[in-house]
Amino acid sequence: MKKYNIAIVGATGLVGRTMLVVLEERCFPIANLRLLASGRSAGKSMMFRNKELQIEELTERSFEGIDIALFSAGSYVSEKFVPLAVQSGCIVIDNGSFWRMNEEVPLVVPEVNSDALLKHRGLIANPNCSTIQMVVALAAISDKEDLKNIIVSTYQAISGAGQKGLDKYYSEIQGIENNDKYKIFNSIMFHSTFNENGDTIEEEKMLNETHKILSLPNLPMNITCVRIPVETSHCENVLVELKHPADIELIKERVKNSPGIIYIDDANNEYPHPLMSSGRDEVFIGRLRKDRNNPNIIGLWVVADNVRKGAATNAVQIAEELIEKKLLYCESRLF
Amino acid sequence: MKKYNIAIVGATGLVGRTMLVVLEERCFPIANLRLLASGRSAGKSMMFRNKELQIEELTERSFEGIDIALFSAGSYVSEKFVPLAVQSGCIVIDNGSFWRMNEEVPLVVPEVNSDALLKHRGLIANPNCSTIQMVVALAAISDKEDLKNIIVSTYQAISGAGQKGLDKYYSEIQGIENNDKYKIFNSIMFHSTFNENGDTIEEEKMLNETHKILSLPNLPMNITCVRIPVETSHCENVLVELKHPADIELIKERVKNSPGIIYIDDANNEYPHPLMSSGRDEVFIGRLRKDRNNPNIIGLWVVADNVRKGAATNAVQIAEELIEKKLLYCESRLF
Repeated sequence: MKKYNIAIVGATGLVGRTMLVVLEERCFPIANLRLLASGRSAGKSMMFRNKELQIEELTERSFEGIDIALFSAGSYVSEKFVPLAVQSGCIVIDNGSFWRMNEEVPLVVPEVNSDALLKHRGLIANPNCSTIQMVVALAAISDKEDLKNIIVSTYQAISGAGQKGLDKYYSEIQGIENNDKYKIFNSIMFHSTFNENGDTIEEEKMLNETHKILSLPNLPMNITCVRIPVETSHCENVLVELKHPADIELIKERVKNSPGIIYIDDANNEYPHPLMSSGRDEVFIGRLRKDRNNPNIIGLWVVADNVRKGAATNAVQIAEELIEKKLLYCESRLF
Repeated sequence: MKKYNIAIVGATGLVGRTMLVVLEERCFPIANLRLLASGRSAGKSMMFRNKELQIEELTERSFEGIDIALFSAGSYVSEKFVPLAVQSGCIVIDNGSFWRMNEEVPLVVPEVNSDALLKHRGLIANPNCSTIQMVVALAAISDKEDLKNIIVSTYQAISGAGQKGLDKYYSEIQGIENNDKYKIFNSIMFHSTFNENGDTIEEEKMLNETHKILSLPNLPMNITCVRIPVETSHCENVLVELKHPADIELIKERVKNSPGIIYIDDANNEYPHPLMSSGRDEVFIGRLRKDRNNPNIIGLWVVADNVRKGAATNAVQIAEELIEKKLLYCESRLF
């Protein structure tokens, strides 16, 4: 079996570290693994398959001999180094937001639109965490042509803000010991400033990325993104309006048989929740129910590990798909 | 100024204790205050207006000489003792769910339907916490005749489960110190078992109580109630579909001028959140925005202290309204 030279850019971050774990768990065919980070981390080491790997400083020459580079190091690093990596001949899968909406860059969730990989030009973008789990659920529920309107309220975990967000959270939990109780109890927040429509950047990302992934640029969506004090795994309350009455039993069968999904039936009063999905690669769907008034609307509760399926796992799955589809070449490179 | 004899049934509970605080803060015209609880608490004392008041055991004779009895002691106590209290000649305001849907019992949020008090028969019910803040917001947004459809996702605080819920939560926070991190990070949950429609009891309460309070028994609503790890104050993402296009500036003016509401404009990137509303009696509304596609739909983010406006404060406001409207008599008692 052919093996590949892989680089992880941002290896010491929350998503980067999880990429190492996921690559190991999935027995990814690796010849050499290069761990890249800022100068601060260079010289330190990380464990992979029981071997200590040195972390190297990211430079313009870091991508020589690399087949696939997985980026998760922030927008500035992606903006500067993704073009260099593509130029040097490797295929880049970028977890950041900088390149996602570029028309020449496929934005891919393998369960949903792996065909978009066919026309890649050396760079594939990994979507936003909250978008990934929702589109996996939407694709399972219905043929995309039947989608009429989507309404979603998110319950997003702190780890979506990366290691910095988690560190701040942990320090606030420490604060509880100092009778500073309110901080953690108050961790509801929105993700950014509001634009002129009153939407946040996170909400705009979900809108634009869903439109791109589903190739439905006019699909009406109403999105509210909220951060809550949960460590890992995003929850989403999703209402899907179809163009026809929903056959709930048929939809349950579709969901059960969809790849990458675990369906939790509420017959036993079970429902997906963060502890259930944390550390798992699947998207968990439960609370599938009809609207009481509109027969075309169904509701569902979608939970997934935002660091895994929402970031690291999806990126590794894209790499697996490229290998499977023999797409690790590129006729016309973007850079 | 006339003063009244008040009893609090369940005085030692989370809502009962808050009733004491609210009565004191609002300078409620009290002659005597009787604190009633189970035998376990009898003989203990609580402070009110710098005086130590003895807690008495609730018995069939507890209501002699009482003008207004505020109940917050659970369904079993309400079922048994509310009729006795009404029979003994006092007016009961019951915070429990047992009597709420009884057709002879007004279910009242003073800002919304104080006229319902006119036909009371000695018993008024206080609605569910999540219902109260939503109907206050709905009444501010629009004339109820213009409401076409409501979609709500809640983010409900642990204190909605009373002192027991809070105690469990605090013990789980202690657990963090024992590296038992997952528990608190996983506190997303639904409120009960699912019925045949897949709804929880909390969701059914919101549906039925909203229909009753607004006298709109057929108003279509899609409700999802979620408990999150926040101590106090419920948040709700509410989408309101009107029967006509929404004039967002007009709605903002209505909201700003509505009683009991604090409007938070997102112009300064501010939004209502639990810390902002905790300890306050008002309902906080922010993130008022139009749907991108349907001109009849607006979204809003509604936050209120579930123990105060969602329970104790609303009950005291009902008592104030009864006094104001001279309704502390009753021609035909329910019991």
